[in-house]
Amino acid sequence: MAKQLVEQITNMDKDFAQWYTDVVTKAELIDYSSVRGSMIIRPYGYAIWENIKASLDQEIKDTGHENVYMPLLIPESLLQKEKDHIKGFAPEVAWVTHGGDEKLAERLCIRPTSEVLFAEHYKNIIHSYRDLPKLYNQWSNVVRWEKTTRPFLRTLEFLWQEGHTCHETEDEAQKETLKMLDVYADICERVLAIPVIKGRKTEKEKFAGAKSTYTIESLMHDGKALQSGTSHNFGTGFAETFGIEFLNREGKLQPVHQTSWGFTTRIIGAMIMVHGDDKGLVLPPAIAPTQVQIVPIAQHKEGVLDAAYEIHHSLQTSLRVSIDASDKKPGWKFNESEMKGIPIRLEIGPKDIENGKVVLVRRDTGEKIDVKNHEIETAIERLLQEIQSSLYEKALEHRLTKTSVAVNMDEFKDNLLQVGGFIKAMWCGDQACEDQIKEQTQATSRCIPFEEKGVSDTCVYCGRAAKELVYWAKAY
Amino acid sequence: MAKQLVEQITNMDKDFAQWYTDVVTKAELIDYSSVRGSMIIRPYGYAIWENIKASLDQEIKDTGHENVYMPLLIPESLLQKEKDHIKGFAPEVAWVTHGGDEKLAERLCIRPTSEVLFAEHYKNIIHSYRDLPKLYNQWSNVVRWEKTTRPFLRTLEFLWQEGHTCHETEDEAQKETLKMLDVYADICERVLAIPVIKGRKTEKEKFAGAKSTYTIESLMHDGKALQSGTSHNFGTGFAETFGIEFLNREGKLQPVHQTSWGFTTRIIGAMIMVHGDDKGLVLPPAIAPTQVQIVPIAQHKEGVLDAAYEIHHSLQTSLRVSIDASDKKPGWKFNESEMKGIPIRLEIGPKDIENGKVVLVRRDTGEKIDVKNHEIETAIERLLQEIQSSLYEKALEHRLTKTSVAVNMDEFKDNLLQVGGFIKAMWCGDQACEDQIKEQTQATSRCIPFEEKGVSDTCVYCGRAAKELVYWAKAY
Repeated sequence: MAKQLVEQITNMDKDFAQWYTDVVTKAELIDYSSVRGSMIIRPYGYAIWENIKASLDQEIKDTGHENVYMPLLIPESLLQKEKDHIKGFAPEVAWVTHGGDEKLAERLCIRPTSEVLFAEHYKNIIHSYRDLPKLYNQWSNVVRWEKTTRPFLRTLEFLWQEGHTCHETEDEAQKETLKMLDVYADICERVLAIPVIKGRKTEKEKFAGAKSTYTIESLMHDGKALQSGTSHNFGTGFAETFGIEFLNREGKLQPVHQTSWGFTTRIIGAMIMVHGDDKGLVLPPAIAPTQVQIVPIAQHKEGVLDAAYEIHHSLQTSLRVSIDASDKKPGWKFNESEMKGIPIRLEIGPKDIENGKVVLVRRDTGEKIDVKNHEIETAIERLLQEIQSSLYEKALEHRLTKTSVAVNMDEFKDNLLQVGGFIKAMWCGDQACEDQIKEQTQATSRCIPFEEKGVSDTCVYCGRAAKELVYWAKAY
Repeated sequence: MAKQLVEQITNMDKDFAQWYTDVVTKAELIDYSSVRGSMIIRPYGYAIWENIKASLDQEIKDTGHENVYMPLLIPESLLQKEKDHIKGFAPEVAWVTHGGDEKLAERLCIRPTSEVLFAEHYKNIIHSYRDLPKLYNQWSNVVRWEKTTRPFLRTLEFLWQEGHTCHETEDEAQKETLKMLDVYADICERVLAIPVIKGRKTEKEKFAGAKSTYTIESLMHDGKALQSGTSHNFGTGFAETFGIEFLNREGKLQPVHQTSWGFTTRIIGAMIMVHGDDKGLVLPPAIAPTQVQIVPIAQHKEGVLDAAYEIHHSLQTSLRVSIDASDKKPGWKFNESEMKGIPIRLEIGPKDIENGKVVLVRRDTGEKIDVKNHEIETAIERLLQEIQSSLYEKALEHRLTKTSVAVNMDEFKDNLLQVGGFIKAMWCGDQACEDQIKEQTQATSRCIPFEEKGVSDTCVYCGRAAKELVYWAKAY
């Protein structure tokens, strides 16, 4: 039986898409329903989201932001106020036309994002520079009418947080935009062990209505990139449209400078595709719902279960630990624990008890470590830290291995075929070249990285003078 | 200026509805938007909800439940499967008919509650008695198309948790239903200081599709009742309709027994109307976002601000404390702190510093207490507990004062007019009498209480033999 479970997962290098689908269902992260393109987030998946959310919410509060809640439904006329914004979102919103039996006088859309609601509210409550900054955040669900969907990566509905802030000056808004990008990068790298590249989006790829969009980009096991969080500087665009004005320190009316930034359940998909392997999920200890799974060996023998429960009891105040004392065979329990990506398995059997020790098994490497009874807790804490940083290092190495440089389109195409991953190449700044690269290779501009040296003097596509270094990749 | 703020609140005994509206807006709990019937929950209101949610979520987890997330949208055909359920909810759902520019083949409603989604999922994942019980909970937003709305009390969209569980036996489901009612009662009484009456709803008032509905009912300052949480036993109704069957211990297929239970942002409205007064909100310390507000007196004098910040620093590890060091006048600060219902105001001025003391002012009673510097923390902790239980006692006394007995309709009507509040009266069990009482008095049956003695032998309306004691009241 134990064998069967493993056989149910497709080999990741054979068919990565199928491997992904296998993992999200077999590890019981999600289930499908009769609602097209939506997913049920099951207890194990939701516990992961709760842990990510707790870490991010703490950072959002520590940086001075307050949580609020805005309505789910947006009147069509309100959504239409900002022209670029509506143009970007109109094709993908769900429209409510009836309440009960009654046809509505005006259609309402389900929020695809809440800029316009925040803008309307800010106009009401901001009057003077004394009311600034306003640093609001919202945890909510949003709907975007996607044609093709995949669990976590692209769903009709997803969960996220969206921050929306107002500032006195351009400089302050820009600092906020970058500060929150740093918060996202920290959550990805420190908590989720996902290395990211920080940078700016091109005009073509920026958010509808924003002055500039910043992004963190990560690389999946299959060499495709994934946008993992974005932060936007709106300048005074929305403020001018919505009339969000304040009396400044000189007593003059002026529009506020705004930002918004979002981080979604999509990141769970990234975490799966960065760390997972052919046995299933591999979870970073910082967010694993269970960090240590205790598996008693020969549990019918006297003293084994007692010893296992004693360890469980002693660990559970400082760690997220569980015990599998079911009547399944140990091999089956091992497989389940591996499928669910639990960082450490703790085995204890009659011989271990005799020798006053237990065995710790690392999910990421399979390494087995004998640990004396009195050292269990410190050994586990050290090991969890080691696993956390080791996952990060491995992912970083993977990304570096799959990052190449191209100075012309032959190299570009060749690298994409041979190496995959990120291609660093220069760009003249002309959207026509960006479009052509996408058309010929399916790779898109992921970001213009902060503080990286150029790799040549000319645009990889047209050969004219280069303006920017760009990371390109096929992406989710 | 300080006076002005207080004058802006309507006297609660003059116009309670206007008082309520004044408080929710002036204490900055909510704001209105262009979305009819919806509200913006502002930072102070949302912080209250976060505290309530944290307490309830902990109890839900401690009783063995797991959080999940179901889709927002429900296909019409799925909602229609359970006939009583659709009949109850159809008039009040919002319908999505278009995705982007495309008309949908089937309408989707925004969840008014998620029974049918849970039922569909449970059918997929439950096969054997080994899969039971399934104890799931969801924190989410729901939409019900209400005609007339009021902040927190009745809004098109509200936030809540909905628990949905499946069990092997009738007995186990019934125990679960009552256990969660107890959890709600505990949150109301211990955390929110709102005394409740636990009981069963009549057939007329029960949830659409349920076998029986249990409720906790509380009484507002104006003598109207408010349903504060409900727990439903579905029996095997949904299970039979949706085919949620399992192989029982005898190897036979049988339907599961189900429950559901919900607790909403409505409770914030209850808390306002139970504890508030003519100065504004009065918050129970257990959920107050700020438990202690420090107000420096004559803060321009040397040492005052330093002393205030020192106290702030020493208290903030164990308490939710803030300091108002703005350049507003102390009287203005007092009023703001009172309007926001902060349980304790801590005043410190030059004379206090000289005498090595501070002054604590209770929000609920206005009592001023001198406390020596070395006793501040213990005095505050004791006082917060005292305020918490005192709010409960006061609310209980109010409810008892406003609870009367009626044995005939003359008494019933007279009591309703003279006393208001709850009327305890016997009922024959015939819905016609229940309907008539509502028509003649606007009072509805709130609940059939657990373990209370009857007050007479005959139905208060028809005079036939009485079956049940019922609490009646006009209600929100």
